[in-house]
Amino acid sequence: MKYNIIFAAFLFSSFAAFAQQKPAQNLVQYVKPIIGTQRMGHTYPGATVPFGMVQLSPETDTISYEENGRYNPKVYAYCAGYQYEDHTITGFSHTHFSGTGHSDLGDFLIMPTVGQLKLNPGTATQPNSGYRSRYSHANEVSAADYYKVKLEDYNITAEMTASTRVGFHQYTFPKTDQAHIILDLMAGIYNYDDKNVWTYLHVINDSTVTGFRRTNGWAKNRVLYFAMKFSKPFIAYGNHNYSKKEVYRGFWGKFNQSKNFPEIAAPKLRAYFDFKTEEGEKIDIKFALSPVSMDGALANMQAEIPGWNFTAVKEAGQKAWESELSKINIQSKSIAEKQNFYTAMYHAMINPTIYMDVDGEYKGLDQNVHKAVGFTNYTTFSLWDTYRALHPLFNIIEPKRNDDMIKSMLAHFEQSPEHMLPIWSNSGNENWCMSGYHAVAVIADAVVKGNASFDTQKALEACVATARKRSYEGIGEYIDKGYIADEHNGVSVSNTLEYAYDDWAIAQMAKKLGKMDIYNEFMKRSENYKNVFDPADGFMHPRNADGTFRQKFDPLSTNNQGFIEGNSWNYTFFVPQNPPELIKLLGGNKRFISRLDSLFTMNLPDKYFAETEDITRDGIIGNYVHGNEPSHHVAYLYNWTNQPWKTQERVRMILPKMYKPTPDGLGGNDDTGQMSAWYIFSSLGFYPVAPGSDQYALGSPAVDAATIQLPKGKTLEIIAKNQSDKNVYVKEVLLNGQVLNRNYITHSEIMGGGKLVFVMSGKHGK
Amino acid sequence: MKYNIIFAAFLFSSFAAFAQQKPAQNLVQYVKPIIGTQRMGHTYPGATVPFGMVQLSPETDTISYEENGRYNPKVYAYCAGYQYEDHTITGFSHTHFSGTGHSDLGDFLIMPTVGQLKLNPGTATQPNSGYRSRYSHANEVSAADYYKVKLEDYNITAEMTASTRVGFHQYTFPKTDQAHIILDLMAGIYNYDDKNVWTYLHVINDSTVTGFRRTNGWAKNRVLYFAMKFSKPFIAYGNHNYSKKEVYRGFWGKFNQSKNFPEIAAPKLRAYFDFKTEEGEKIDIKFALSPVSMDGALANMQAEIPGWNFTAVKEAGQKAWESELSKINIQSKSIAEKQNFYTAMYHAMINPTIYMDVDGEYKGLDQNVHKAVGFTNYTTFSLWDTYRALHPLFNIIEPKRNDDMIKSMLAHFEQSPEHMLPIWSNSGNENWCMSGYHAVAVIADAVVKGNASFDTQKALEACVATARKRSYEGIGEYIDKGYIADEHNGVSVSNTLEYAYDDWAIAQMAKKLGKMDIYNEFMKRSENYKNVFDPADGFMHPRNADGTFRQKFDPLSTNNQGFIEGNSWNYTFFVPQNPPELIKLLGGNKRFISRLDSLFTMNLPDKYFAETEDITRDGIIGNYVHGNEPSHHVAYLYNWTNQPWKTQERVRMILPKMYKPTPDGLGGNDDTGQMSAWYIFSSLGFYPVAPGSDQYALGSPAVDAATIQLPKGKTLEIIAKNQSDKNVYVKEVLLNGQVLNRNYITHSEIMGGGKLVFVMSGKHGK
Repeated sequence: MKYNIIFAAFLFSSFAAFAQQKPAQNLVQYVKPIIGTQRMGHTYPGATVPFGMVQLSPETDTISYEENGRYNPKVYAYCAGYQYEDHTITGFSHTHFSGTGHSDLGDFLIMPTVGQLKLNPGTATQPNSGYRSRYSHANEVSAADYYKVKLEDYNITAEMTASTRVGFHQYTFPKTDQAHIILDLMAGIYNYDDKNVWTYLHVINDSTVTGFRRTNGWAKNRVLYFAMKFSKPFIAYGNHNYSKKEVYRGFWGKFNQSKNFPEIAAPKLRAYFDFKTEEGEKIDIKFALSPVSMDGALANMQAEIPGWNFTAVKEAGQKAWESELSKINIQSKSIAEKQNFYTAMYHAMINPTIYMDVDGEYKGLDQNVHKAVGFTNYTTFSLWDTYRALHPLFNIIEPKRNDDMIKSMLAHFEQSPEHMLPIWSNSGNENWCMSGYHAVAVIADAVVKGNASFDTQKALEACVATARKRSYEGIGEYIDKGYIADEHNGVSVSNTLEYAYDDWAIAQMAKKLGKMDIYNEFMKRSENYKNVFDPADGFMHPRNADGTFRQKFDPLSTNNQGFIEGNSWNYTFFVPQNPPELIKLLGGNKRFISRLDSLFTMNLPDKYFAETEDITRDGIIGNYVHGNEPSHHVAYLYNWTNQPWKTQERVRMILPKMYKPTPDGLGGNDDTGQMSAWYIFSSLGFYPVAPGSDQYALGSPAVDAATIQLPKGKTLEIIAKNQSDKNVYVKEVLLNGQVLNRNYITHSEIMGGGKLVFVMSGKHGK
Repeated sequence: MKYNIIFAAFLFSSFAAFAQQKPAQNLVQYVKPIIGTQRMGHTYPGATVPFGMVQLSPETDTISYEENGRYNPKVYAYCAGYQYEDHTITGFSHTHFSGTGHSDLGDFLIMPTVGQLKLNPGTATQPNSGYRSRYSHANEVSAADYYKVKLEDYNITAEMTASTRVGFHQYTFPKTDQAHIILDLMAGIYNYDDKNVWTYLHVINDSTVTGFRRTNGWAKNRVLYFAMKFSKPFIAYGNHNYSKKEVYRGFWGKFNQSKNFPEIAAPKLRAYFDFKTEEGEKIDIKFALSPVSMDGALANMQAEIPGWNFTAVKEAGQKAWESELSKINIQSKSIAEKQNFYTAMYHAMINPTIYMDVDGEYKGLDQNVHKAVGFTNYTTFSLWDTYRALHPLFNIIEPKRNDDMIKSMLAHFEQSPEHMLPIWSNSGNENWCMSGYHAVAVIADAVVKGNASFDTQKALEACVATARKRSYEGIGEYIDKGYIADEHNGVSVSNTLEYAYDDWAIAQMAKKLGKMDIYNEFMKRSENYKNVFDPADGFMHPRNADGTFRQKFDPLSTNNQGFIEGNSWNYTFFVPQNPPELIKLLGGNKRFISRLDSLFTMNLPDKYFAETEDITRDGIIGNYVHGNEPSHHVAYLYNWTNQPWKTQERVRMILPKMYKPTPDGLGGNDDTGQMSAWYIFSSLGFYPVAPGSDQYALGSPAVDAATIQLPKGKTLEIIAKNQSDKNVYVKEVLLNGQVLNRNYITHSEIMGGGKLVFVMSGKHGK
């Protein structure tokens, strides 16, 4: 790219006054958690604070993972528990993933009802058959840390907010002698018959209840504890035990355990609490979680929400959000842009989640209780997604948290029975989801960028140990042969490509730490992508153990072609660690541009769409799949050709097409914030193509200006002069008044603060 | 009773030299844990230290609680896991109740094998079908804290010992390339299909394994953690998962989880570890338990058995036993008497069991982790049995432990969701077994006897709260009406009688603490036994709500007659708190004696025996059921008549009839030491008829002499002058040289030490 230097001085002076303005107030108003709740965004509309342990949100159905003993594909839509198109709410549970394509959680569902007690949730088509209620979006408010809805069947207004570890419910009842609050301990997301391994309920007094739930779900070996307080004593309580008959009933028969009996332990329970209410009477519930114990949950409640002031909790939560959102203060003429941007910021700062009690204790991978000393422990690491842009974003605007997240990963490594860094971890469990070992990329990125207060030598050892785990998904063969044979692994090409990138990241980290033997070993490994490239067809191609390439192969298909969540057309571009070599491999500049152009413009036959996971039809542009992650860097690859303007053009095409401020506004799963992080970076004009490098490829800012708050009181002001929907091309970039004669910016330049000016134009160079 | 004073001076001088002898050494040699392992004693032959958390003992079959969906009565014989008549051993597990009539436990079964790996236990009739092995009593040694057996099918010698929290296995193998050690996580006592709720196994390295097991058994809500170390690294390991298919296999399919994979979590697992061994090579295993965590188990192991010296652990264990046994040093011409006595001492000091980690942490009734501060926490409280003689025995020879046991009960009360003292508690669980609320009797007994360092006011409050728990088994009606109506409770008469006794105990405690309002309330309640006495038939008799007595009633039957583990014939004597009033109720001295005589001499028709629980035919004398507890005080009731010599005669008849030093030597369940405690007291010549009183009824000593070690270095020497099988009558009793003109001795007299001389004779008075 060639920038014109002429306007530099002018631009700088012209925007100086503007850039010095104070950050705008009330960014929270632009957060619309409802974005992505329709179709495949898999976000949720409920209440949470930044990185909070509690995600208190409505469930709109009870789709089971299994139907008649088979996988029920409908369950997929309910990864976050809520689907915008549904007409009933079954209740409000305390844990939700944001934007995932597989799921779990939905713990401890609360539902207020009036009238005859119903303890089953009923069905969507026959809502009156159970405790669920009709609702309407007209009577729904979804905001940062606040959710409100009218439960029409019961004339109850439900409101909720949360602190880090405590959900706060407020239910406004009509006058009735028959008010109930149901606690459904069987409800859950991606639920199935035996998912509830065990539950325990202890009614401590007329307004305090504790308990726990052990589940065998995506997290195989998970226990979550709770403590619950009502603002008003219940007058009676009970439960129904849906478990198989107890073999050892024995002397428990002395009691009627289903009514006003203070302890129940069984796999399948639903409990209820009865009240009498006056018209408009509010009953509040504080519901605290703990990964460690019921005592821990009570202590969390006492520490975070000792009183009963709903408004104060909500205001504190929104203040916390405001503080996070204001890390980047954008200027835009478009409300939609502000809503997209701040909702992306919001979605980017939900996961990973804090995973420890207020005293620092948490349940580790080894199922022992550990104490986080000197750091905050996090979980919910969807690393195949988030190493790409979310953690790089945190290195800029959340450096302390990212450092703590890595400390959490290193603790995970210490506790891991397999002696590996996390792949996809949650709640003291590993689910091994997806390809690669991308924790190493997150760690390398932090080390290379100098945001690493952890023990970097130990961290390197953990990365190397993980990358040398021969028994893990073909790593042994990959080390021995340079690729994974098609016969031995269903996603052999994805794995080979992703390992090669991760290895390069390890090498960068080793180099920075002066470990040149490690550097050399892993730089060599990082070239393994070449071993799955078939020069005959010009694609990354499944390769047999004997060195030949698979005969029957369709580079457009994602079905059993050696790739995961991507076809070869997209995955062939997955060499973020070395675009120049990739370009050579694909035949040089011109042919590479042509291949990229085809990706974005070709017409993907419908049959291939049908097999593409996790995204809507809108999540694809040509054959470019933005809704899945392997292509997230691809639009930026033009930067390594002589047509970087195509990066600018593509990015500005993708931004509005894939992100809209509407319930169905996300083109695919938000993937715990990775999709949102892509949006944030790309809107600001740069993107981390290869985490582990200190460089960010420049793109085309979609905001008019932005101020990024940096550590030590520094700021980076970004100004996009003449930016508009049409002026998407970058004519010139100036950093602190100096023209930048390259199409990347370094991490130290960003963190050094100052001014980054993009001069935009409606025309591009050649 | 009338003692002859004439020989007192002579006797005193004559026995002085003898009584001053030092206690005999090596009392451990008389302990025969095998006593009671045949038929209904329900003791176990394995290794344990006094009050140890680990009871490491062989299992001889795998009888399931259910067969074809129905209760399998055969399971009853396996309460302690071992039946002497069996010919195979299935393995060695780490937890066993001693002498109970219901059961649980059998956690973490270890079995060493050679040759082809078999992971199922096989059957008794086809031992080769599984991992079990034949064995013979000729190749078996069962001693205090030591068990040894030859596993014939594998030519493996198995030896085991234990510390408080750690089992130590030593297996001597033949030369083989195929040595296995199986860890069966599904095995258990009173096992059934879904009893294993969840298990977890973590192979930390080539010789260290941790894990846990959650069970839903007699203890409904129980988790036990373990840590296991091998003296030699295994060369391979694996498991078989017998659970239903996992719904969420997901990315765990990346691994072969059944072989050399370091973590498994599922409800039904059996694991194995492979070795190569030389001829005669020993493989040792240290296996530690914890109620709190795997880390806790590892810490327990490190604290108690840091090294690998099997002999040293065994010697330490036997030294601990010697120290406990020497609390009472008896003189007897009979080896059988010594074996009976010291095995009774041994069985009396197995339960209750220590229930906390070395750092004092334990899992409470509320399922939270608590720390025992200033006391040792105990569990396994079979209080319906043990309040009678076992805890009174502890007040004499284990005062510190009894005090700690009460502190454990008070902690239980604090943690109990029902706000009640323990009924029958184990491992942080309550199973509500049997009748009454006899923890109050244990507490009252300690308070009245001045062995109470706990907060006595709080203890009284706990007793009163428990006794006023209206929702518990008819207490409400009992309070309102003075008895429990037959229509409302299946064991209404037992409950009424036992509550009345317990209430008297509370009253005694209240009096001692100066709470006269409580004293008066509960003294009144203590007379409620009168309300179920039917003057028409002279029996305690089920009474209807309208005040009439049940029409159809059989005082010989134990089946659905309003009693538990006893018939009315026996239970009618259950007024230990007031024998004089009972005598009046039954028609005065003469008629009372006649009733007692009939009890011991009548011929109980076989049909009634068939319905008598927990005892062998030998456990009954006439219609007197010694094998169950409600009659344990009955032989001493003659003391309140003018024929106390009949107490002496009956006791001396019961002792040898009900206790023999043979595998089938116990006439009924040992009941966690209560039967043994009866033996100890009665052999020494006195018995606590009504715990809560400071008096012990005098009987007829069966030992020649005994020295009881008391606190502060005091001793009580008991001398039975002229004692023999024929000289069972007490002519005279002298305490410290003074003739005792009464047929009881007080607790302070015992604890004051000195000499208690019984002058025995072959003739009784009138």
